[in-house]
Amino acid sequence: MGAESARFARCAACCDVGGTKVLIGFVDRLGNVLARERYLLGAGREPEDIVGELAARLHALADRSSVDWNRVAGLGYGTAGMMDVESGVIFASPTQGAWRDVPFRALLRDAVGVPAWIEMDANAAALGEAWLGAGVGADYFVHIIVGTGIGSGILVRGEVLRGWRGTAGEIGHTTIEPDGPLCNCGNYGCLEALAAGPAIALRAQAAIQQGRRTSITELADGGAISAETVFRAARAGDQVGRDILDKVVEYLGIGLANAITLLNPQVVALGGGVALGGGDLLLEPVRRAVARRCGSWIDLERTRIVLSTLGEDAGLLGAARLVWKSSGDENL
Amino acid sequence: MGAESARFARCAACCDVGGTKVLIGFVDRLGNVLARERYLLGAGREPEDIVGELAARLHALADRSSVDWNRVAGLGYGTAGMMDVESGVIFASPTQGAWRDVPFRALLRDAVGVPAWIEMDANAAALGEAWLGAGVGADYFVHIIVGTGIGSGILVRGEVLRGWRGTAGEIGHTTIEPDGPLCNCGNYGCLEALAAGPAIALRAQAAIQQGRRTSITELADGGAISAETVFRAARAGDQVGRDILDKVVEYLGIGLANAITLLNPQVVALGGGVALGGGDLLLEPVRRAVARRCGSWIDLERTRIVLSTLGEDAGLLGAARLVWKSSGDENL
Repeated sequence: MGAESARFARCAACCDVGGTKVLIGFVDRLGNVLARERYLLGAGREPEDIVGELAARLHALADRSSVDWNRVAGLGYGTAGMMDVESGVIFASPTQGAWRDVPFRALLRDAVGVPAWIEMDANAAALGEAWLGAGVGADYFVHIIVGTGIGSGILVRGEVLRGWRGTAGEIGHTTIEPDGPLCNCGNYGCLEALAAGPAIALRAQAAIQQGRRTSITELADGGAISAETVFRAARAGDQVGRDILDKVVEYLGIGLANAITLLNPQVVALGGGVALGGGDLLLEPVRRAVARRCGSWIDLERTRIVLSTLGEDAGLLGAARLVWKSSGDENL
Repeated sequence: MGAESARFARCAACCDVGGTKVLIGFVDRLGNVLARERYLLGAGREPEDIVGELAARLHALADRSSVDWNRVAGLGYGTAGMMDVESGVIFASPTQGAWRDVPFRALLRDAVGVPAWIEMDANAAALGEAWLGAGVGADYFVHIIVGTGIGSGILVRGEVLRGWRGTAGEIGHTTIEPDGPLCNCGNYGCLEALAAGPAIALRAQAAIQQGRRTSITELADGGAISAETVFRAARAGDQVGRDILDKVVEYLGIGLANAITLLNPQVVALGGGVALGGGDLLLEPVRRAVARRCGSWIDLERTRIVLSTLGEDAGLLGAARLVWKSSGDENL
């Protein structure tokens, strides 16, 4: 397709709602991001307000980016929450307010003026990585996001493995240490309570309170200690940082090994701020930890454990993918 | 269908190969077992011998049971091992000998004289239970066999979730206790090393060696202590038996909760000698253990955790199901 015709080709409007920020944009059928914008999500807002602001911002972004609105094939919308993607009802959303059972897909369609599809954020990111990133060509693909929380999207031949009520993939709430720390979910020793960003920061704070010598306080420089601070310390050889890293690697290794043992994926990709922040510091050690935990029948030489490649665009591209998959435009 | 026409209807030959025993039979399209026979599997035998004996026994069984061989639509064969069900090659089988990469499906077809299909034993049992037992009507179904080992079959809308290399479902080798006992697979703290029959017996032996007072020795009556002995003791109020049961319940609860969290099945069924031997002694406590480990988004009031209902016929009926699914006779 030449540049001339591409300008008139159809594109997808898309929206990836994070914990505090919203990323919107327009993406063509080849996965090119034609325009993007980021804005803050106000807390505790009503669905109509959220959808109204999104519609206004999408139309304004189209105008300023010379995206012809008549060429917008549809809207893909990824967000945290419990939902039924078919009916388009969001039952509950942890990040968007206290409302319940909202026919979000219909609200989006009416406000934005194009067909709309919704998806859980972790699944949208997996769809993006399967389309254009770490999961390309993998029949069985698990994409794990390690950030403030830990979640995953599981794809079987390109389709989301949803489970009965749409909650499959909650790898962050699988039990790794039966007597481990209390998790937000009420269980003890969940992967999320052991290896997500807040858990890593907590471990550093505990080490400091125990009086261990570490450069972490200095690196934080009066700000809050984060996983990133801990990883920076570990890179510089700080023993506390390295000890915390070792634990995180072991927990992630068990979590991944359990998913690999149960699902036998061809590719497992690690994304999210914590995993991508750790990068190579995490990846090779996690691979070794997985190898220690997996039986010999798992062909770990060919099961690829990799980092996500799309960074913060994974969810946005996955949202676009919803439009192309669902509107039948999948195969040009 | 009347009894008269049923006699002339097509049926499936089927074979379920266990650790030491083989169950063969003929099953009609409604799941009626028309004839069955059990025989011992000799150790370390060649594929040709195994298949030759099977063919002879199936033909003899048909003769004595008035099954018209011309009405046999095909053969379904379930066994332990790593295999490619499409090509029909068994790469390795722990129970049938040291041979490797055997084109078993072709051997079966040639020896028995009908089209043949092969399947992993755990998947075959899941297919059986999904057809006629605990998994009927469940879009997402996990069937776990707890016996000498622990394995599972995962079905999504009636299809086996195989994974990339066909090894999905090895729930027995997910890590439950990171510092737990060594497993046959080389990992520590696998579910199988904690909750399968041999692990239960080992725990009883350890308690006896530690000098704990228990009726287990007496119940074993000079024979080997088994999970069944331990459960009998627990039923009678023996404290050692109860303590072991509590541990097994906790481990199974974590294993099931992790699978439920990752896969969100509608039904999880427990089969196999240990689980069915434990029966109600296990079931209700396991349900409570799962509830402690699962987040509130899992609708445990409607997620059914049940015992398998087909007993030792699950694998045989699942093998028959292979024939009906694959030969297009699925829907009468």
